This record gives sequence, structure tokens and C-alpha cells, in this order.
Amino acid sequence: MRRGKNMRKVYCDNGATSFPKAPGVGDAIKEYVESVGGNVNRGAYSSALSAGFVVLETREMLAELFGFDKPENVVFTKNITESMNTVLKGLLKEGDHVVVSSVEHNAVMRPLVKLEQTRGVTFTRVQCNKVGEIDLKDVEAAIKEDTRAVVMTAASNVCGTALPIKEIGKICKEKNVIFIVDAAQTAGVFEMNMKEMNIDILCFTGHKGLLGPQGMGGFLITDELVPQVDSFIEGGTGSKSDEEIQPEYMPDKFESGTPNIPGTYGLHASLEYIKKVGIENIHKKEMMLTERFIKGMEEIDERFIIGKRDTENRTAVVSLDFVGMDNGIICHELDVNYGISTRPGMHCAPSAHKTLGTFPQGTVRFSFGYFNTEEDVDYALNAIKEVIKAYNE
Amino acid sequence: MRRGKNMRKVYCDNGATSFPKAPGVGDAIKEYVESVGGNVNRGAYSSALSAGFVVLETREMLAELFGFDKPENVVFTKNITESMNTVLKGLLKEGDHVVVSSVEHNAVMRPLVKLEQTRGVTFTRVQCNKVGEIDLKDVEAAIKEDTRAVVMTAASNVCGTALPIKEIGKICKEKNVIFIVDAAQTAGVFEMNMKEMNIDILCFTGHKGLLGPQGMGGFLITDELVPQVDSFIEGGTGSKSDEEIQPEYMPDKFESGTPNIPGTYGLHASLEYIKKVGIENIHKKEMMLTERFIKGMEEIDERFIIGKRDTENRTAVVSLDFVGMDNGIICHELDVNYGISTRPGMHCAPSAHKTLGTFPQGTVRFSFGYFNTEEDVDYALNAIKEVIKAYNE
Repeated sequence: MRRGKNMRKVYCDNGATSFPKAPGVGDAIKEYVESVGGNVNRGAYSSALSAGFVVLETREMLAELFGFDKPENVVFTKNITESMNTVLKGLLKEGDHVVVSSVEHNAVMRPLVKLEQTRGVTFTRVQCNKVGEIDLKDVEAAIKEDTRAVVMTAASNVCGTALPIKEIGKICKEKNVIFIVDAAQTAGVFEMNMKEMNIDILCFTGHKGLLGPQGMGGFLITDELVPQVDSFIEGGTGSKSDEEIQPEYMPDKFESGTPNIPGTYGLHASLEYIKKVGIENIHKKEMMLTERFIKGMEEIDERFIIGKRDTENRTAVVSLDFVGMDNGIICHELDVNYGISTRPGMHCAPSAHKTLGTFPQGTVRFSFGYFNTEEDVDYALNAIKEVIKAYNE
Repeated sequence: MRRGKNMRKVYCDNGATSFPKAPGVGDAIKEYVESVGGNVNRGAYSSALSAGFVVLETREMLAELFGFDKPENVVFTKNITESMNTVLKGLLKEGDHVVVSSVEHNAVMRPLVKLEQTRGVTFTRVQCNKVGEIDLKDVEAAIKEDTRAVVMTAASNVCGTALPIKEIGKICKEKNVIFIVDAAQTAGVFEMNMKEMNIDILCFTGHKGLLGPQGMGGFLITDELVPQVDSFIEGGTGSKSDEEIQPEYMPDKFESGTPNIPGTYGLHASLEYIKKVGIENIHKKEMMLTERFIKGMEEIDERFIIGKRDTENRTAVVSLDFVGMDNGIICHELDVNYGISTRPGMHCAPSAHKTLGTFPQGTVRFSFGYFNTEEDVDYALNAIKEVIKAYNE
């Protein structure tokens, strides 16, 4: 037991939000808040213009990151949940059918269920296997005549398994179906190329793998789809201000009201950092930590590990189900006695837990980030060992 | 002409976003981003809990500020435009009628026009007079049998005129109509008491008079109305996570996905500052500056002043229409040659400009804040004089 003021702190909840953030994020926000202060699109004076420049450059950096060539089609929202709501509710009409996987987050499922109730949208949930893998044949078979879109997470937020986005994109292209990807768990840690993967709409969040502040999310949308997606939030855009109807041009169509400029400065700083380090290096380090953790867990008790055990096609999210024990208590003990932050429960993804066989007890989710170390992993493994021992004494 | 590196900077665009922010806002955000870092409702570990405490306390401070007793019914959004969209789209059904003033911002008008097109919602625009004042009899007459709600700005963002919210609230109560107030221009600079004013839903933004960062807005809603307003954005709430339908309890019903916690820390700091200084003192100082500016403008050329000239029932927003000159050029000259930030054009409120007789040329809007000084006002007046002189030479 390490309880006490000087207890080590090991953050293993990067799947919820990354911590620490990229160096410079806090400073960039503070600098904006204290020294720049202008609004974009809403003033002609110089600080408003310089804020506008940073916002535009952030769009450009995101477009580059996701293999996309239309920075003006990079839309900012407050989080990926808003992105998903904007896209699904703007796109889907009465009678549309949608294909999803069985490991989707509630950011996809809850708006979809709402659309089922209010607009008669229907959906097919393609069952993944016990480790979260999907069969491409099942995806293909689920696409029907009235299927408007396939909506898939790029990787499960519960067990870390990555879905074969490129292959699913190919199917969507062949079947002429819109492909919407939830990149919450992969942006910044996996190469995601919209063109190569045939992604029509990519939804991202800024505060997980992109290492920026909470409050920033968004989506990238192809030109072809812009007219097919209704605006979701109408209001002042600082453009066509003589009219009471929402402008159709981008990104204004989907960005009403004063944007989160401090957050954009923060995201700008973190994207610069990611570019400098390189996604490949980030992924490599995270996989090294994940492998070390899984290997260690196999030594402790392999039955506890939920999902895949290799490091192919996965993120650094590892769920544990402490069979015969109370996951909530284990998680709490790790926190108060060892300073280890993990996340218990359903992870806002009940369907994923049903798929993995961990419903309703949930799991204790460890999710590593680029700033974790091998020492963190070893410390966590040792803590798990001690907590289990104490639990069973 | 003062152009040059050491040119004084005078910020007069507080109606768009206040600047500077309250002391401590930048530090509070940086401190959270660098040292706290947890997500609320999504982790059981200590930093997640301490972030949760600050978020809750911010709700309590806002409830107190607006004379409201249900902190859990204080909902955060990214801006007041999202608040208005949430409330109007969640509340209004096919056939509902709404009463608005003729000086509403596009944050109200654009969603309303969209609802007119998509759901057959109708609205009556009560005409204000040439200085933005509304006649209570007209409001009363506009309320019909099928009127569901009265939606009014508490003060015009173009000319600063405050509407008689308390009196309108009384009418709404008598007529049993829902009263929704857009407090974008008054929160933090006017006493706004939901109970005394019979306001059912108050929408606010955090980055104007509340002196917090952009990216924070919200609304306060009475218990009675919660079940009448549908959720707008569904997704993970960290609650009832075993279900794919949105929970009905507050504030989760309206807060899906990871919230803007850095922004909440910033708003928490600015609300503390406002409480310390006192809204009355803020209002008094802003009115002193406004009076000085209007007096000075009367000496330059009173025809340029749009709206009221007294300091009763108004905010520190003053619009100028430089009759016979180009408002855009005047605004630009003030910026580049004098370092004075103002805002030209329509201010996202075409209906207000039509009311005030300044459509389509717009105005140059000066909006003072608590941190402006008498010297700022005198400097601005002198700059205006010089710019006009140079323009006409």
C-alpha cells in the first residue's frame, strides 16, 4: 500500500481523456486568453484576424493529419458526440437504414436510437466476435438497398480492437454507401487517411489521442456530402449577417455562435507536437507499453484480460474483468492506495460489453498514452497483484 | 495618426467577447490543463472527482447569480447559440406559435426560421421603436391562443437598449406562456433574477459580461419545463451507461460527451471575480463610460448616434452610423491607425438594424467593458474626430 501525500500518480485513463496534454497546450490557451482575445469572423481588428489565422491553420493541420484536402470542410464542435449528432441527424431521413458494429459507443448509439424513435430510421448491428473483431462478410451482408450509411468506430473504446476501416471503406465505395467513421480512439495514434480509406465523414475529438484540451471536437466532410447534411445548429456566423437563414457555405453552415477559440489554440499546440513526434512513433511507444502490460497480466492471471492479446490492429486500451471480484472495488483500490487512475464500468458502450461478455459487470479499463512509461506499467502490474492479494485475504 | 509599434490598444468590442478576461481566468485554465486533467462523471479517481467539484460549484455560482435554486438544472453548452437551438428545438412542436422582439440576434432568429420551414412553427415579431424600445401592450397583443413561448433578448446587441424583462415576465405568467430570455448581453452586467422576472429558461454565454473564456455557454431551466424539452444531443453521459437511450435526469439529459472542463475552470474563476466586484459596481462603471462616450459623440455629431442617449435601461453597447461616410472604412481606420477595436456591419442581427433604420449599411459598434477607462473613452472620441476629419479631407 502506497497511500499518502507522496504517493506516485500513474494516469491510465487516456481512453477517456489524455493526460498530460502535449507540452505547450496550457501555455497556448493562457496566451490567447490573456494576450490575444479577439473573436474570429466577427471583428476586423488585428487580434481578431490573428485568432482567425490560428483557427484556419488548425483546420489545415487536421486536414493534413487525416489525408484530406479541404480545410474549410473541417468543422469544429465541442466534442465528438456533438459531431456524431450533427452528422447523423443532418443526414438521415425517414426510412434510411444504417449499419453499425456491435462495439459502438453511445455517442453513436444514443442518437441512432433517438432517430429510430423519431424518424423511423432503422439500423443493423453487425455482431463482432468475443475480442471485438468484425467479419467483413457480415458488414457486406448487412448493407441493404435502403442503407444510407455505414457508421463504425475505428477502434473499440472498451477493448482497443481496431476495425478494418480501409477494407470497410472499400465495401462502402463498391456499394455506394456513405462511410462515417468515429475516430475518437484512433485520431493521433493511428494513421487515418480519409482518401485511402474511402471515409466520407470522419468525426474526431481533440482531447484524447490528439492531446489537446477538452471542449474541442469536430468532423471532416467531403464536398459531395455537404449539401446532403442539414445544418444542426443555426445562428450567427459572422457571414451573410443580413439574412435570417443559415449560410450554406463551409465551415459556417455547421459553426454557429462564438467558437471555442482558447480550445483551438490548445489543439493547435498539440497538433504541432504530434506532427513533430510523428504518429508512427506515438503508436510504436503505446504498443510497447500495451504489450508489456498484457504480458504482465498473462503472468498474473490471463482470464482477467478482455479482448485481443496481441498488438496488431489495436490501441493502447486494455480492459480487465477481475472474475470473482468486484471491478469497482479493484478500480477504487488502485486509485486510493496506488494513485492509479483507471476507469470502471460500461465506458458508455453497453453494446461493446455485451459483445465482449462483460455486461453488466463492466471492466476496469487501463488505457495508456504516449507519456506513460515502462515504469508506470510495472508499477500498475505490481499494484494489481497486491490489490488482488489483499482482496482475497 | 498613431500607427506604429507602440500604438495604444483600446478594446471596444466587449459586446462580441469581453477583453481582457477576469484576472485568473488564464491561470485557472492552465492549472487545470497542466495539473488536474480528469474527466467529470467518467472516472472515480481523485482528479476526476476534483474536476467534478469545480463543475458543480460553477453551476451553483450561476444559479446564485441568476436567482435560481436548482444547480443541477444549470446546463453547459459551447455557446448561447447552442443553448437557444437546444431549447427552441427541444420545446417547439408543429403548430406552436412564438413571440419575439424585432431586435433579436440570429442565434434566436435563424433556429426559429429553420423551425418555421421544417416544423411549421410560426412567430410574431413585435416591432420595437427606432431606439429599440418595446411596447408592453404590443407584446400582450401578440400572444395568441396557440402561443407556446415568448423569446426575448434582455438587451439589444446592436444599440444596447434593455427590454423590460420583468414586465414581460409578468405578462407571460398571466397568460401562462413560457418565457425564454437571451441574456447574452446582460449576464454579468445587469441583475437578472429568474424568479423575480418569471423567466422559465435563461440562456447565457460565458465569454461576454461573465468575463470567462469563449467555448462556454449554457442555460438554466425550471424543473417544470425539463420534461417538456426534448434532449438535443444524445450520447455518453457517464450515467445509465448500460442503456442506449438518453437519461432523463438533469443535467445529463442535455450534456452528452466530454464537457469543456478547461473552459469551466475559466468560467469558475471569472464568476468568483464578478462576485467579488459586484454586478452593481460593474454596471455603474460601464454606465459612467457609456455616458461619457455618448456625451462626447453628441459634441462631435449627434446624428451619428443610433439608439438611446441616456443610461437608463441600457448596456454599454453604442452603435454609430457615420452618415454620409463608409462605416467599414471608419472602423478599419480606427483599428489600423488608432488601435481601437470595434465591430462594423450587421452584428448578426439584421432585424435589429431594420428596426433602428441602419439596414443594410450597418453601424460601427462600440461596446465598453468593466476594464475600459475614461482615458479609453476620451482616446476613442478623439480618434473618431480625427478619422472623420481625415475622411472628409
